[in-house]
Amino acid sequence: MSAAMDAPIHASAPNLEDLQTIIRDYLHEERFEKVRTLLDTMHPAEIAALMTGLGSTERHYVFDMTSEEVQHDVLIELEEPDQERLLDRLEDERIIEILHNLESDDATDVVALLDEPTRERVLQASEQKDREELEELLAYEEDTAGGLMALEVVTVFENKTVHDGIEMVRTAKEHGHEDIHYIYVIDRNKTLKGRIAIIDLMLAPRSQSVLEILDDEMIVIQRDTDQEEVAQIFSRYDLIAAPVVDEDYCLIGRITIDDIVDVMAEEAEEDIAKMAGTGEETVSERNLLITIRARLPWLILALFGEMGGAFVLSQFEESLTTLIVIAFFIPTIIALAGNVGIQCSTIVVRGLATGDIHSNRMFRRVGREVVVASVNGLILSILLMLVVYLWKGDWVIGIAISLSLISVVIVSALVGSLTPFLLKKMNQDPALAAGPFITMTNDVVGLTIYLLITSSMLS
Amino acid sequence: MSAAMDAPIHASAPNLEDLQTIIRDYLHEERFEKVRTLLDTMHPAEIAALMTGLGSTERHYVFDMTSEEVQHDVLIELEEPDQERLLDRLEDERIIEILHNLESDDATDVVALLDEPTRERVLQASEQKDREELEELLAYEEDTAGGLMALEVVTVFENKTVHDGIEMVRTAKEHGHEDIHYIYVIDRNKTLKGRIAIIDLMLAPRSQSVLEILDDEMIVIQRDTDQEEVAQIFSRYDLIAAPVVDEDYCLIGRITIDDIVDVMAEEAEEDIAKMAGTGEETVSERNLLITIRARLPWLILALFGEMGGAFVLSQFEESLTTLIVIAFFIPTIIALAGNVGIQCSTIVVRGLATGDIHSNRMFRRVGREVVVASVNGLILSILLMLVVYLWKGDWVIGIAISLSLISVVIVSALVGSLTPFLLKKMNQDPALAAGPFITMTNDVVGLTIYLLITSSMLS
Repeated sequence: MSAAMDAPIHASAPNLEDLQTIIRDYLHEERFEKVRTLLDTMHPAEIAALMTGLGSTERHYVFDMTSEEVQHDVLIELEEPDQERLLDRLEDERIIEILHNLESDDATDVVALLDEPTRERVLQASEQKDREELEELLAYEEDTAGGLMALEVVTVFENKTVHDGIEMVRTAKEHGHEDIHYIYVIDRNKTLKGRIAIIDLMLAPRSQSVLEILDDEMIVIQRDTDQEEVAQIFSRYDLIAAPVVDEDYCLIGRITIDDIVDVMAEEAEEDIAKMAGTGEETVSERNLLITIRARLPWLILALFGEMGGAFVLSQFEESLTTLIVIAFFIPTIIALAGNVGIQCSTIVVRGLATGDIHSNRMFRRVGREVVVASVNGLILSILLMLVVYLWKGDWVIGIAISLSLISVVIVSALVGSLTPFLLKKMNQDPALAAGPFITMTNDVVGLTIYLLITSSMLS
Repeated sequence: MSAAMDAPIHASAPNLEDLQTIIRDYLHEERFEKVRTLLDTMHPAEIAALMTGLGSTERHYVFDMTSEEVQHDVLIELEEPDQERLLDRLEDERIIEILHNLESDDATDVVALLDEPTRERVLQASEQKDREELEELLAYEEDTAGGLMALEVVTVFENKTVHDGIEMVRTAKEHGHEDIHYIYVIDRNKTLKGRIAIIDLMLAPRSQSVLEILDDEMIVIQRDTDQEEVAQIFSRYDLIAAPVVDEDYCLIGRITIDDIVDVMAEEAEEDIAKMAGTGEETVSERNLLITIRARLPWLILALFGEMGGAFVLSQFEESLTTLIVIAFFIPTIIALAGNVGIQCSTIVVRGLATGDIHSNRMFRRVGREVVVASVNGLILSILLMLVVYLWKGDWVIGIAISLSLISVVIVSALVGSLTPFLLKKMNQDPALAAGPFITMTNDVVGLTIYLLITSSMLS
């Protein structure tokens, strides 16, 4: 039994931090042979995870000491900013070799990271087959099925036998193709006729025609389908691989579940980034300027949006000066308007993204959110009224503030649940409604309602 | 070519809304045969998606009209609240049949949804083998590898040949086992020796010993591993299936990628729910009371938290009354403190969850966040100073407010980035720091700083 098997893999996360310390020490003491030996026992994905936690000099040392046979696998497991930095340091020859060793979809992702002149040089110097594949895949939009797919598919003509199919698989495997789950049956025009799972190929008599055992009810992806939709299809139908076709139903590639897992993580990350107002920033971003630039627009938006709040307050200067207690509850009103708005908008945004909420059921959904907010608003208002009474000993102030709270909560629910639907109808990303934008709107609207009600009731 | 293939699947989402309208019309006109014919052409996952968009009576009609052979597949694709409601209406006999048709992991999830008395009755009336499997799996924590795994594994003893392995696969397939990607080689004690991919089994000479072609460097999951960690392992190593073992390294089950895809979606949903303060509410929750109860605690937390803000403000009553302009910028300060805090905490929470940020690099990370916030805070302060000057024509007020803004922003970054690390060290979920909790803390802290600086500079 191998070492990798003896070590319980479920403990890999803590082990990695220990490994980092060990490697850092070895590097410091210049015991490079030790580092090499250690890296040779590790999975490429583990090396990549290890590198993520290291400083940039150490990271480059580790990559250089990784066996050349797995460097391409390590590179592809790194986060984009780290990939870019590594590629910057590599010579053209090394990049060409790495591209040659990668499957076509991964190679395309790497080429896309190269700066224009390097990309030109590398493509020119690559083998003709590699270059043609890369140019074909680079032509697709990155976030479509075409941009996700690999060109490595095992195909067999419709007049062939199971035996022929098995030999095609054998050849593909000898050429280093990975993740072969199906072979695809095509006619002379490359039109897709169906697929055969490897397991069915194995269990069928070798002399049988492939046409007799093919599955023609498989799910097929069009090459221009958006990657989020591809992920939804994979998830809905529990797929591990799917063929990609062009307009003429010709087979042009295939997508595998490992790419979809990455897409799902990416899409969740994007939604969360929109909620947090962190823009395109990735978790592993190392460049401070990129981080600053990603976050600043949201903050400036908030700054100018809240100037609206300052303006609203200035309009009620007199009420505020004569009854300063109104100002005390500004943070409370704003916080609850914000929270209720985000609760409603987030649920609607998620539902629209997963397909659990249909855009033609807008009124029903908004109505539901308003009902929920009304009940919660009522409970909060009663609590707030009691607190204000206990503190200030004045029922009228308590009632005025509570009454405005429940109004603000209901309006926030309305704005929060309606906005994602409206953005979707205007072909904008509904997720924009789940972040700083909705909070800001609700702040200003909420403040206005609050000041109108309290100042008119208490003056 | 079948109908399913002619219809481009990538258009399934819009088609589904049309189908809903058609089915609703048919039901209304009591043309039940039409509904049945339509349902027979649909994939179970499509029927489930269709049902999600229907009212509860229509939903139950559609389920009843679905062919009994696929009802179990439809049930398992529904969201939990809909599953529960459906199960409530089914007779014990039907439930027992459905359980019998499901793979063991899915059957266990269904049994877990039954109320106690029904579960007892159903288990008692099930075939002995089904009952034993269910009781074994029910004993595991739901969110561990044991709770995720299925018991259906294809095994072969180490002294067998490739031919024997293929026959084991054939038998398993005839018994309806799905998603067979590997066969596992075990010894007499059920200790796991290695695995063979179906493709390698197919390509090997039939008379070869399984020991000669087995892969013993596979990744193995311990049964008590947390599901989030299992998902990280699948994602890191690009797995489509993995064996689960007990303490003695005996093979007890396997986990497949489709379950992991669900876990990933669930975990992303949970993080987002924590950010939005919507608790355990799922997007497809239909029960109003559950939604209200899920959201209320966060709102009450915010209400009482912001009472802290009201208290702080009341301490500065005099400054506020004499210089009411201070009150005008309360929303600005609060909004920016909140936004910066959420930006920092969200990035750290995500990084800790994905493993991209290591918990032993706390100071470096917090330092980075504070630097980013300082730069952005400086830019915002200058903008705010200009706005205040243009509005009020007074540099001193502008400088005082700007100075407090930059202080508030830096402190918010500190609180936002530090809290997730501290929660993790205290074995709490860091994601708690990405939601209403951090906003509230920053509101109160920010207000205090703001009022201290402005009132001392302007008095």
